[in-house]
Amino acid sequence: MEDENVFHSFSKSDMYNLPDTNSLSKTELYNLLKEQTRALVAEEFDFIANTANLSSLLWHSLPQINWVGLYRLQLKELVLGPFQGKPACVRIPVGKGVCGTAVKENRSILVPDVHQFPGHIACDAESRSELVVPLRASEDLILGVLDIDSPIPNRFDEIDRLGIEAIAEILTSHVSRLIKATS
Amino acid sequence: MEDENVFHSFSKSDMYNLPDTNSLSKTELYNLLKEQTRALVAEEFDFIANTANLSSLLWHSLPQINWVGLYRLQLKELVLGPFQGKPACVRIPVGKGVCGTAVKENRSILVPDVHQFPGHIACDAESRSELVVPLRASEDLILGVLDIDSPIPNRFDEIDRLGIEAIAEILTSHVSRLIKATS
Repeated sequence: MEDENVFHSFSKSDMYNLPDTNSLSKTELYNLLKEQTRALVAEEFDFIANTANLSSLLWHSLPQINWVGLYRLQLKELVLGPFQGKPACVRIPVGKGVCGTAVKENRSILVPDVHQFPGHIACDAESRSELVVPLRASEDLILGVLDIDSPIPNRFDEIDRLGIEAIAEILTSHVSRLIKATS
Repeated sequence: MEDENVFHSFSKSDMYNLPDTNSLSKTELYNLLKEQTRALVAEEFDFIANTANLSSLLWHSLPQINWVGLYRLQLKELVLGPFQGKPACVRIPVGKGVCGTAVKENRSILVPDVHQFPGHIACDAESRSELVVPLRASEDLILGVLDIDSPIPNRFDEIDRLGIEAIAEILTSHVSRLIKATS
């Protein structure tokens, strides 16, 4: 659970002026992205608005990616949410492809080469590696997945996985708090 | 009301392979975009998924734009929806800025120079011209707006306005049909 009392050096208005991140190390970049995500969700509860802006933030900050966005879990299907990149598959059954497998197994999946992933769903033939992280309201309540594609094989490593998992947790922290407050 | 029996030369799967549109005239481009939008909504009702893919389609097809996406009307506010471009303002009161004025006056607004628009809300200082089109379930029931920004003054003309209005009508045709079927 993220500490909501952490110092926010980024205000919501800073979201609209993205800093130059080229000189940052990968760890520094994720620390900045976590701070920006906290600023993003600090005053706003709307899940669609927040995930639209988060997709944009990641798109403009992470190098060498060709798609980033959300799939929302609805019954037994993942349904496309806000994203940045080319048009994408709308519905993915739970258990199918990388996104569907991440939901079924309730874990992040890092795929160095999507051509080697059994049952990979290719929305964009240019995608070569992929990172999918569950968005959870609580340990067993999955809201959807955050999906990032790259045209480069082996684009993502453990620093990316941990960084995106932390961002996913910040994004859903409002929902988690609401559930705790009412249970 | 769009004719839903029109011949669809684009299937849903063609959405993921965007054709090269550089050689098309503006009218030809909008004819293609209308056909692609029909294919997009032909089999899918989810408004967020459809507007996410429509934003991507327009982003990759319309030259000289720096933002395209949706605001959804919720009570007296417009709330950010799926988009492509840099992070954006989350909430816009009805009557404020170009988007809020388009809702208040229930009409499209074409702004040749946003610096000259009273009360313009600048999410991105690079935006210089803007086209905002209401998304209507029926004549008086506004669902939100489709908003397109350009870094070029006078980027949009009447062909753009009519083209985007037609696309907005195709996008909401499912909702219109549902309302007619139940009223």
